[in-house]
Parts: sequence; structure tokens; C-alpha cells
Amino acid sequence: MTDILGRHLLVEFYGCLPETLDSVTSIESHMNAAALACGATIVQSTFHRFEPWGVSGVVVIAESHLAIHTWPEYGYASVDLYTCGAHIEPLVAYEHLRLMLGARQTEVQQIQRGNLGYIRSLPLIHTPQNPDLDTAILKGGTFA
Amino acid sequence: MTDILGRHLLVEFYGCLPETLDSVTSIESHMNAAALACGATIVQSTFHRFEPWGVSGVVVIAESHLAIHTWPEYGYASVDLYTCGAHIEPLVAYEHLRLMLGARQTEVQQIQRGNLGYIRSLPLIHTPQNPDLDTAILKGGTFA
Repeated sequence: MTDILGRHLLVEFYGCLPETLDSVTSIESHMNAAALACGATIVQSTFHRFEPWGVSGVVVIAESHLAIHTWPEYGYASVDLYTCGAHIEPLVAYEHLRLMLGARQTEVQQIQRGNLGYIRSLPLIHTPQNPDLDTAILKGGTFA
Repeated sequence: MTDILGRHLLVEFYGCLPETLDSVTSIESHMNAAALACGATIVQSTFHRFEPWGVSGVVVIAESHLAIHTWPEYGYASVDLYTCGAHIEPLVAYEHLRLMLGARQTEVQQIQRGNLGYIRSLPLIHTPQNPDLDTAILKGGTFA
């Protein structure tokens, strides 16, 4: 398995409930609940309803982001579930949203983001200072 | 060519300038400029810097969203450029960010979002009302 920084699920939800897709209150509630369900920490949510219909929204999480765009007139929602770290399971968020949106058909692609093997193979031009490391050195301590 | 609702570029920027990646002010400025450069209408931007380093941010646009997550310690940024409509060219945003972040290596995948052919093949369970259409009918006018 490739050593990666993030997992990104690109989800197409087809045949969803149009009323749900057109309600900014419902969509924001379901997206925030999906973030919490998969173990993420919410940093900020922003949601908007467009005229004559449709909702867009993003939940920035400490572990990347969840995003949604809805087309109520087509019963379609496109969802991104992008997470980093070993303690988050984006498929839990997927399953929560599938049920809440009433999706009858779904397509899911998983894309790996940030190939660490490739990153390590590049010559470093600069390494940012690590204040924890500096503090450890100043205190004569160690830094794992 | 498949009839789709959106184009989604998933971009890996490697070998970027760490100082730029760690500056929330720079990242927000570059992302907003990228959105405008490609012809998008900005609805809302939200950006955050994490400790000890790294920036996450999203620009919600009327035509979907642009998102970024940076790992200054790796010189790496993952960027999503998701746009809808014929008047937006996400590759312009890509090129703007490539230059501003000083990326030495990039990977780009383009994913098609929302297959309209598939949507049209599904039986409709409900069509939302179209207030413009209603108005046109009430006025005895036409609605293209």
C-alpha cells in the first residue's frame, strides 16, 4: 500500500430526495453530523442556498474537509469526503449521508492524496523550524 | 464526450515554497486570486492556520468550490479545483497557484462529476416547482 497523507472519497449521490437537497438547514445538519460521525473535528462550516434551487456547503475539519453541492432538480448531490489521519473513517460519513439524502444510486471513487514516498524522494530546499524541537533542545530534552 | 455537471481537478503540488504554504494570509490571497482568474464568483472564503504548521482553506464559488490543504514541512499542497458551467476554466486557477506556490512538481487528475446521461435515465420521483415557470404561465408568457 502506498504511504499517503490523505484519503479522498468522491461520491455521486443519484436519485436523492429533492426537498432534502434544496434545504440548506437539512444539508448543513446532515454534513455536520456526518463529520462528527466519522470522528472528525469541525473547524468551520459554511453553507449557502442558491436561487432558484441548490445548496453548496463545506465543513472544514481539522483532518481536511467535507464538501457538498446539490442539484435538487436532478435529485443529484456531489460530495467530497477528504480526510487525513488514521482515526477518521470517511466511509462512515458516506453511509450517514447516503441514508439522510435518500440516495437510490451511488458512485464512489477513492483517490489517494499526497504520496509520501514521492515527497521523501524530492530534495528538500528548506525545512521549517520546529518550535517544539527547539524547546526540547534548549531544555536539554529529547524530541521523538 | 460525456455530458457532465462539473469538472473536478485534483492537484498535488510538490516541492513548494514552505514559507508560502505556512502563511494563511498568502494562501488565502492566492486562492481568492485563482478563483477570480478562472472567472468564478466568490461566495465565501474560509481559511485557517494550524499549529505547529499548515493551512486549510476553502473558497466557495457560485460554480462549486476551490480547496487547499498545505503541509509546509513536506513542501506539499493538495488542491481541489471543482467548477461547473462552460465559462469557468479551472486550469487557469491551477496555473496561477502553481506559480504562486512555487511548485516544482505537480500531478493533476480530472474527474467528471454528475453524469447527466445517467441522471436522465433515472425515473423522476418528484420535480421541484419552478417559480419562474409558474410566473410565466400566470402572465401568459413563455419560458425558454
